[in-house]
Amino acid sequence: MQLLKDKIIQEGTILSETVLKVDHFLNHQIDVPLMLKVGEEFANRFNNEPITKILTIESSGIAPSVMTGLELNVPVIFARKRKSLTLTENLYSAKVYSYTKQQTNEISVSKQLLNKDDHVLVLDDFLANGEAARGLIEIVNQAEASLAGIGIVIEKSFQQGGNDLRAQGIRVESLVRIKSLKDGKVIFN
Amino acid sequence: MQLLKDKIIQEGTILSETVLKVDHFLNHQIDVPLMLKVGEEFANRFNNEPITKILTIESSGIAPSVMTGLELNVPVIFARKRKSLTLTENLYSAKVYSYTKQQTNEISVSKQLLNKDDHVLVLDDFLANGEAARGLIEIVNQAEASLAGIGIVIEKSFQQGGNDLRAQGIRVESLVRIKSLKDGKVIFN
Repeated sequence: MQLLKDKIIQEGTILSETVLKVDHFLNHQIDVPLMLKVGEEFANRFNNEPITKILTIESSGIAPSVMTGLELNVPVIFARKRKSLTLTENLYSAKVYSYTKQQTNEISVSKQLLNKDDHVLVLDDFLANGEAARGLIEIVNQAEASLAGIGIVIEKSFQQGGNDLRAQGIRVESLVRIKSLKDGKVIFN
Repeated sequence: MQLLKDKIIQEGTILSETVLKVDHFLNHQIDVPLMLKVGEEFANRFNNEPITKILTIESSGIAPSVMTGLELNVPVIFARKRKSLTLTENLYSAKVYSYTKQQTNEISVSKQLLNKDDHVLVLDDFLANGEAARGLIEIVNQAEASLAGIGIVIEKSFQQGGNDLRAQGIRVESLVRIKSLKDGKVIFN
């Protein structure tokens, strides 16, 4: 998605060889017209799937998911991040390890919102090691729902998450794939 | 906003005399067409203001804010909740006490995203004691930006936040105001 590549070049900040900061348009400030285009693109890519719900994770997945939900006319569920293990009643939940924060979060979704009749599109802002995506897929599995695929705004393809998921036969659609952040430069696939 | 009142009656759950659960359409699962209507309504109410940015707080404020940003054609900033006091460099920040969680969170916004030329619409899903709104206003003040007003999806008017803010001369637009949740019934103003 050229518009997104241009935005990353213009407004992204490379913090290290593995960290790209996109606070100006995706995960702190949201460029709303860009998010609308992102939603249209995800909807186009998955328009052959009878999607009933979009599942994402708070907070940065919400804006692209809502725009995709607008195009596909389906509800969006955002999994909650929780640290405690209390209140697990009537929740699907999965553990997600965050490499950046070096901590494990419990993510959860109310059982009332997802069931075996759902065909779910999982969406997120970033895909690196694939921890969040795996947690969301686990929740889809717990609900006995089917998985339409995974939509990612920015995939760091130099990390193994995307390839691991594809190797399992899961459809992963990334709007932008970044091959390298070395030497202060963004190289796309 | 009648559509929202109907939704609260149909799908809201009263958990106590002070807590209304709206997980099915606002703060866990998002009813996207409803959020679009919410965005249109906020845009209509504030269309006389030269708004440059919408400021909200993660996570439940994001969906209504993005839809309002779509209508007003302005970016959305979501303040981050943080518990630590590290990384305060280049951040506006404020303390927000959560009555439901009985803990104080630090909320913060990058100084790069807000400045004295901005005219800010503060949006949030709920207004009860007004703690989150006060924190967001403090951030607007730290940035020396001007405040267009506060837009709230659901105000619990039996708590004092809305009246306190109005008493300070701040424009508060709530799409729905709830006078009582007693006896398992929602009474609107």
